[in-house]
Amino acid sequence: MKSVITTLLGGTLLAVSLSAAAAQLSPEDQIETRKAGFTYMAWNMGKIKAQVIDESVEYNPEQVSAAANAIAAIANSGMGALFGPGTDQDVGKQVTRADPALFANMNDMAELAGNLGTASDNLVAAAATGDASAVRVAFGEVGKSCKACHDKYRLD
Amino acid sequence: MKSVITTLLGGTLLAVSLSAAAAQLSPEDQIETRKAGFTYMAWNMGKIKAQVIDESVEYNPEQVSAAANAIAAIANSGMGALFGPGTDQDVGKQVTRADPALFANMNDMAELAGNLGTASDNLVAAAATGDASAVRVAFGEVGKSCKACHDKYRLD
Repeated sequence: MKSVITTLLGGTLLAVSLSAAAAQLSPEDQIETRKAGFTYMAWNMGKIKAQVIDESVEYNPEQVSAAANAIAAIANSGMGALFGPGTDQDVGKQVTRADPALFANMNDMAELAGNLGTASDNLVAAAATGDASAVRVAFGEVGKSCKACHDKYRLD
Repeated sequence: MKSVITTLLGGTLLAVSLSAAAAQLSPEDQIETRKAGFTYMAWNMGKIKAQVIDESVEYNPEQVSAAANAIAAIANSGMGALFGPGTDQDVGKQVTRADPALFANMNDMAELAGNLGTASDNLVAAAATGDASAVRVAFGEVGKSCKACHDKYRLD
């Protein structure tokens, strides 16, 4: 089954996560779970943004580190497994904004996802220094990597 | 505002996260976001369960570590901020299974949440050893800490 899925998607970077996880969730649950991951990352991005971009909230290094850890751990958790066959359209109660083009370009998506992982790891490292300026720069890079995928593969 | 919210909830452990995050999300979005966090933790728990409890999937130390990291990072991300005023009942499109009793016992909830954080950190450490037996034990402790809160504060 692993080789079939891998071949279907034409992916190599995704193979590890697919082998162990895709078959366990229905397409509907895969969509729900990937949206959950994005929602949770967005909340944590918002906390950091408030502290280093908007500066509407006092900088709290522990909270910024915790938020960065959440973003990076989700980004590196093998989300590719949540874009399995049958998840390219709405299923049951789940509405997806993933562009069908994504599923025809899984290697490109995997590369974009890898970029997010790297940028998120750099954000964790910046947060660990406690230096808001370093966090601001690293946060911007994470935002760019989010946007790169949204612009290509997220429907409005 | 920080002191008002802190006083309202009677919480001390939650104060740090509340000060910077609660006011940014509406009650509806807080419910959506906390459910997203739980959904994402559950998926990652499922991956580890399949590998060390059910043994229906071959043990993959990298994937188990990634899953453990996601669980721990979410558990330690300050979820208490997502249980703010107005989130003790369904709001808009969001249905909550949080028992109203939770909101009258925020210090107890914070302690249970702290236990989850500790158990999750131990799971990360076990996963880093690559020893499936150690992961199995640590996974069981995380499961217990999940259940302790569900039994007390989650409606069926």
